[in-house]
Amino acid sequence: MAVENSTPPVSPSPSSEHESGVWSQIKAEARRDAEAEPALASYLFSTIIAHTSLSRSLSFHLGNKLCSSTLLSTLLYDLFLNTFSSDPALRAATVADLRAARFRDPACISFSHCLLNYKGFLAIQAHRVAHKLWLQNRKFLAMSLQSRIADVFAVDIHPAARIGNGVLLDHATGVVIGETAVVGNNVSILHHVTLGGSGKVGGDRHPKIGDGVLIGAGATILGPVKIGEGAKIGSGSLVLIDVPPRTTAVGNPARLVGGREKPTVHEECPGESMDHTSFIAEWSDYII
Amino acid sequence: MAVENSTPPVSPSPSSEHESGVWSQIKAEARRDAEAEPALASYLFSTIIAHTSLSRSLSFHLGNKLCSSTLLSTLLYDLFLNTFSSDPALRAATVADLRAARFRDPACISFSHCLLNYKGFLAIQAHRVAHKLWLQNRKFLAMSLQSRIADVFAVDIHPAARIGNGVLLDHATGVVIGETAVVGNNVSILHHVTLGGSGKVGGDRHPKIGDGVLIGAGATILGPVKIGEGAKIGSGSLVLIDVPPRTTAVGNPARLVGGREKPTVHEECPGESMDHTSFIAEWSDYII
Amino acid sequence: MAVENSTPPVSPSPSSEHESGVWSQIKAEARRDAEAEPALASYLFSTIIAHTSLSRSLSFHLGNKLCSSTLLSTLLYDLFLNTFSSDPALRAATVADLRAARFRDPACISFSHCLLNYKGFLAIQAHRVAHKLWLQNRKFLAMSLQSRIADVFAVDIHPAARIGNGVLLDHATGVVIGETAVVGNNVSILHHVTLGGSGKVGGDRHPKIGDGVLIGAGATILGPVKIGEGAKIGSGSLVLIDVPPRTTAVGNPARLVGGREKPTVHEECPGESMDHTSFIAEWSDYII
Amino acid sequence: MAVENSTPPVSPSPSSEHESGVWSQIKAEARRDAEAEPALASYLFSTIIAHTSLSRSLSFHLGNKLCSSTLLSTLLYDLFLNTFSSDPALRAATVADLRAARFRDPACISFSHCLLNYKGFLAIQAHRVAHKLWLQNRKFLAMSLQSRIADVFAVDIHPAARIGNGVLLDHATGVVIGETAVVGNNVSILHHVTLGGSGKVGGDRHPKIGDGVLIGAGATILGPVKIGEGAKIGSGSLVLIDVPPRTTAVGNPARLVGGREKPTVHEECPGESMDHTSFIAEWSDYII
Amino acid sequence: MAVENSTPPVSPSPSSEHESGVWSQIKAEARRDAEAEPALASYLFSTIIAHTSLSRSLSFHLGNKLCSSTLLSTLLYDLFLNTFSSDPALRAATVADLRAARFRDPACISFSHCLLNYKGFLAIQAHRVAHKLWLQNRKFLAMSLQSRIADVFAVDIHPAARIGNGVLLDHATGVVIGETAVVGNNVSILHHVTLGGSGKVGGDRHPKIGDGVLIGAGATILGPVKIGEGAKIGSGSLVLIDVPPRTTAVGNPARLVGGREKPTVHEECPGESMDHTSFIAEWSDYII
Amino acid sequence: MAVENSTPPVSPSPSSEHESGVWSQIKAEARRDAEAEPALASYLFSTIIAHTSLSRSLSFHLGNKLCSSTLLSTLLYDLFLNTFSSDPALRAATVADLRAARFRDPACISFSHCLLNYKGFLAIQAHRVAHKLWLQNRKFLAMSLQSRIADVFAVDIHPAARIGNGVLLDHATGVVIGETAVVGNNVSILHHVTLGGSGKVGGDRHPKIGDGVLIGAGATILGPVKIGEGAKIGSGSLVLIDVPPRTTAVGNPARLVGGREKPTVHEECPGESMDHTSFIAEWSDYII
Repeated sequence: MAVENSTPPVSPSPSSEHESGVWSQIKAEARRDAEAEPALASYLFSTIIAHTSLSRSLSFHLGNKLCSSTLLSTLLYDLFLNTFSSDPALRAATVADLRAARFRDPACISFSHCLLNYKGFLAIQAHRVAHKLWLQNRKFLAMSLQSRIADVFAVDIHPAARIGNGVLLDHATGVVIGETAVVGNNVSILHHVTLGGSGKVGGDRHPKIGDGVLIGAGATILGPVKIGEGAKIGSGSLVLIDVPPRTTAVGNPARLVGGREKPTVHEECPGESMDHTSFIAEWSDYII
Repeated sequence: MAVENSTPPVSPSPSSEHESGVWSQIKAEARRDAEAEPALASYLFSTIIAHTSLSRSLSFHLGNKLCSSTLLSTLLYDLFLNTFSSDPALRAATVADLRAARFRDPACISFSHCLLNYKGFLAIQAHRVAHKLWLQNRKFLAMSLQSRIADVFAVDIHPAARIGNGVLLDHATGVVIGETAVVGNNVSILHHVTLGGSGKVGGDRHPKIGDGVLIGAGATILGPVKIGEGAKIGSGSLVLIDVPPRTTAVGNPARLVGGREKPTVHEECPGESMDHTSFIAEWSDYII
Repeated sequence: MAVENSTPPVSPSPSSEHESGVWSQIKAEARRDAEAEPALASYLFSTIIAHTSLSRSLSFHLGNKLCSSTLLSTLLYDLFLNTFSSDPALRAATVADLRAARFRDPACISFSHCLLNYKGFLAIQAHRVAHKLWLQNRKFLAMSLQSRIADVFAVDIHPAARIGNGVLLDHATGVVIGETAVVGNNVSILHHVTLGGSGKVGGDRHPKIGDGVLIGAGATILGPVKIGEGAKIGSGSLVLIDVPPRTTAVGNPARLVGGREKPTVHEECPGESMDHTSFIAEWSDYII
Repeated sequence: MAVENSTPPVSPSPSSEHESGVWSQIKAEARRDAEAEPALASYLFSTIIAHTSLSRSLSFHLGNKLCSSTLLSTLLYDLFLNTFSSDPALRAATVADLRAARFRDPACISFSHCLLNYKGFLAIQAHRVAHKLWLQNRKFLAMSLQSRIADVFAVDIHPAARIGNGVLLDHATGVVIGETAVVGNNVSILHHVTLGGSGKVGGDRHPKIGDGVLIGAGATILGPVKIGEGAKIGSGSLVLIDVPPRTTAVGNPARLVGGREKPTVHEECPGESMDHTSFIAEWSDYII
Repeated sequence: MAVENSTPPVSPSPSSEHESGVWSQIKAEARRDAEAEPALASYLFSTIIAHTSLSRSLSFHLGNKLCSSTLLSTLLYDLFLNTFSSDPALRAATVADLRAARFRDPACISFSHCLLNYKGFLAIQAHRVAHKLWLQNRKFLAMSLQSRIADVFAVDIHPAARIGNGVLLDHATGVVIGETAVVGNNVSILHHVTLGGSGKVGGDRHPKIGDGVLIGAGATILGPVKIGEGAKIGSGSLVLIDVPPRTTAVGNPARLVGGREKPTVHEECPGESMDHTSFIAEWSDYII
Repeated sequence: MAVENSTPPVSPSPSSEHESGVWSQIKAEARRDAEAEPALASYLFSTIIAHTSLSRSLSFHLGNKLCSSTLLSTLLYDLFLNTFSSDPALRAATVADLRAARFRDPACISFSHCLLNYKGFLAIQAHRVAHKLWLQNRKFLAMSLQSRIADVFAVDIHPAARIGNGVLLDHATGVVIGETAVVGNNVSILHHVTLGGSGKVGGDRHPKIGDGVLIGAGATILGPVKIGEGAKIGSGSLVLIDVPPRTTAVGNPARLVGGREKPTVHEECPGESMDHTSFIAEWSDYII
């Protein structure tokens, strides 16, 4: 996604083939798990096997996860189902996010595991619906969803924030993404990451994260800075200034690996390779 | 609030006028939103419009948010309502906190939005009740409330901690405030902030935060140190030593901007101006 | 626990005497609190006093805490009760964890308070059951439990991770412990601590924490590094390399106190003494 | 409905005009009541005003009424909505039943009151869905619905029973209608009425009730007898033999008013006129 | 209560002494039962022992019994508590009803048993609140309560019906009492009893039951007839005509014992003596 | 069962073979239904297929059916499971009741249907547990169960009542069975049947029903009368006097078919043949 022109992060060609392929696999996985674990079969049938599409399964699951005594599951189910059903781009994003978790996280054992159990995945899907409502100027409803996501998953994404496809929130607890933030495609973000604002004044005040970026656990990026495509942000870094494409920033405050003038440039796409540590081990080793 | 003599942080002149003015506005906002968004009208009526006072609305909402299968909503509702109804200072603090969120956070679109959806606001209000119970020596009940707040909002405030008026917990997830901590009036605290203890030994062991302080996301302040009024603590800082009034501490471990001997002093009240980044950009720029 | 040979962290001699002693004390505390606080008596009776053993009380409480509309409390209760009842080593670990909270955390006023209200304690107990299921190759059930623990307590421990006895997760919100991590006995871990992986590739990729280690709030330890027994990791540290026994690492990236060549060695067991700050105050003082 | 040829009791010309007219009126009533009674506004919005059609409102309400911890409201909502949405005849029957309650029961103050609060009306609507499932050979699902209706409303209608349009179950508690029973159009049935079988043997064994019949409270009709159109069955009667059209049967066992040879014949349609007592007062007067 | 002039059935001198005496006894019973049965102690504490008055306990219990997913317990609790707290006559009626159950029903072992477990008692108390709302012209709220009582207890009392003090609904399932019915003081009504209307036309159309009347199981009384004070109505009777004071009506249709001209007159108050059978045994014996 | 000496109605030789045979069949039925109806598979897995014994399945289902906000499902599940597990006679009675429903009710399509959906079956099983608690002098717990059964199933059986094996409560709504009632083996009782007391005085005051009796819908039997084995009681009858074995009583008040002096005697066992009507058709025919 081109961060510069800030077009909404939609997938250019949502593939319904991918969707049905992933859904078939999810159902097969769920049937296998239900067979192996009768104690969970009821859970797998109600959340996956009983449904005729990924949208229905996801809407059911989100509705039951995010409901409260004053926001009934039937209301939320309806809202999610209507939104996902009517928007192929949303469904393509869901499939891309499932694939991101499945192929980037070595602890992810199946698509169905991600669909049911990954709070980062679920938080993003619910955010995508909230974002669509925000664009339709249904702001109060969008922000009420945001609040439920923040309560239930401890993930706080402003509904105006634009999130690309194939995004992985790994572990996810404590992620905060502000109103004018933009996150590109194929980005991976670890837990406790903040894409925060510069302060009290409104307007554009949050980071723009390019495609393929990897942001390590606990990193804090503040203000309307640009993190270039394919950049890496080390765990625990505090970033207040632009980071060039395919370079690495580490530390509090963050420094560019290789130095500000001639930073080291890498070839890989860190958002997909998910290499958290090798790139900073030498730096760390040097210092300790 | 004078941190030195550790008087309980109560508002000197709770204004019932403020209270009824804010409540009128909240009801008007809720009616407008209910009109615009029928899907949420039920939620708005049950949480706001059906109630005759801010105390009733807040008690109802907290009771439903914090209840569990073993702590019924009716019990909590009763507890909150009795406490808020009988203590004008508590109600004044609630109003001050609502105004803090409304006027300091550019993403806050209305009082009603804050009342219903801000987990930081709700966590503080529930804490204020737990604190009052603690002072009445009802420790087990106070700590059970603390536990529910920690489960539901991921905000962990010891019931003995004293919190001033007009305090904003922005995003709030992960905030931890220890037993002997004191937080002054008009303080703003971002998410993942820790006001932690110095260790195993009991007694006074947590920070004292002066009036008007701003503490950035992920900052950790440990031990019975004093953060002077109007000071700023940068995001991700680790603070173990006193910070003078109206100065800025940044980094891990934290340094005073301008140097230890002649730190830069600012005029503004950072807890209210909420400028997170400008004060450290030059420092960051220098280093990166 | 010897981290090197990675034997499962079981207590060598689970003492049923300790178990019944602690349980007697918990019931006595609960009866005293129920007497003093009628509003909570119902809660104390249903969670503690009505039960005939610590295993039943804990299983009941975890079942009600972790259930959802699609995972019923009766199912979880059964699962927990069967697992705890059939494994004395699990019960011994529970008792050791209760004692760890009671004697290391100055804010812990009673065993019953810990049993009911400490999300870190509850998260570890549920993890111990998930870990046993994992070893029995019931992976989907184990990971579903992990997911519920992550939702409810904001603590994310992979079910394969091996956790010793007498472990304290203080405040606990935001703790993340990865698949191949090992945590020794008598370790204390503060909130927002990450024992994270080195990246996308599977296999051994998470830290091994020796007995008696203390890890401060917000510390991030990445990759298959060894933290020697009795070491201290300062709050907010980023650790990517082995830390020798009984030394102290602080900062981002972490440095050894005393220097890499001749690090300062302490005698105490920091996991038990819980001294968070004195060891780094001088370092901090030096820098600020 | 012609009982003789036992065609399914569907409305010949379901009028979508009636449907939208009644729905408009229901929404108007609900808005008026919500205005007058803020305490119930939330209830009225969630059950009626937030919905875009009678089918959605009814499906939402039935889903929430009939759900249990093992049959989730979202599942039932989906089932009801799909069934009502796809079958105009069902919707026409619903409208006819609403009109029956509204115009025959002097205690019925509005359509919305009937829709939300009349257990007889709700039981019949849920039965209509169960009946359709039965015809589709989804017998287990149909009987599970029957069971929920029997638990929640104390109305037990076998899903195979065929019920005409414009049927009123007044008060409804205790009504039992067996597998091969047929109830015509515009019938009114009071509480505790049994349309029971002749015994253990299967096959056709329950009553056929003609159009326009009125059956008084506590009447028991057993076996495959025919109650002719426009007949009246007195309260507490036990009927084991056919009753001719437009005659009146009273007593235990039932006798024809006017005598068996020349029973008194009335002109009115008792199912609509709902005259429970005048027709038997003289008989009663005679005997007492 | 004088049925003739139809004044509202309020107790002339509500005794707060009776109220506090009964409440003391209820709490003592509950403490004794909680001691003897730890499994139920939680239930007894939450419903009785934790409360400071009978009104609070009853409001809590009714709120939890009658709530639904769209009518929250906190709303109902508030409604009941406000109504009972502000009306001593209501509280006197509650006490009289408790005493009626305790002293007339040999299966009633304690006041607390009645308070918690008698659906007839609970249905009447909820009706008393609905009736008060009806008199305040809050008809929709009153009828919504009626509907919840009918669903939960299978007791259907129109909120306009006027019920005296000291009334016992024994077993209670299936009782139906119509809009213009009046029930005097010290009346006992068994299950499946109908006080029904004469038909479709509005206006006064339901029975008036004098003080001290006993109505046996399954009796049906229809139309605006008068049942004189101290009369007995046999089980399964169908009554369509006035019954003189202190006489007995039995059968379907009902006859006066002793004959219409010179009916047998008894001295006792059958509503209190609760003699169901001796008075009709000879009649039955004669016939069988 | 010999009613005369009133020994407790236990099965003389509880066959665990029958138990495992029926349980195998129930699981097979549930698997078949889950396959055919994915929407209900979750329900069938959670209630039946996930369990390892009939006792566990039944305890789970009853716990979830009878729980309330103040009586948690886990508590009830534990209570039911402990009781059924420790008493083979209770389990034999359950199996006999399942077979009674399956083979006597032509509308019963499978054992699993009865287990999940028959409120009469479920009410009796819960009563059997309440009765056992009563015999152990745990009266308050027993009566609290009675109350929940009465609320949920509209079936009110005093826990002291003794119920034989192989008993069918068909439809069940409104059945009331008093404290000193005894019901023999292989009895069938339709809905709205009352086995009621003679009045206010305690002691033996309810009917004794012999083996193999059939009691029709709405019949009322009052006082300590004996209904001889194999007798039939017609629908809507009022019985106040002993009925000899294998005779038929009908009417209000009841008469013996064939006359008091030489009543007609039948050979069949009506409790099993379930012939409701043929035996009275001629009588009815004669009269109408």
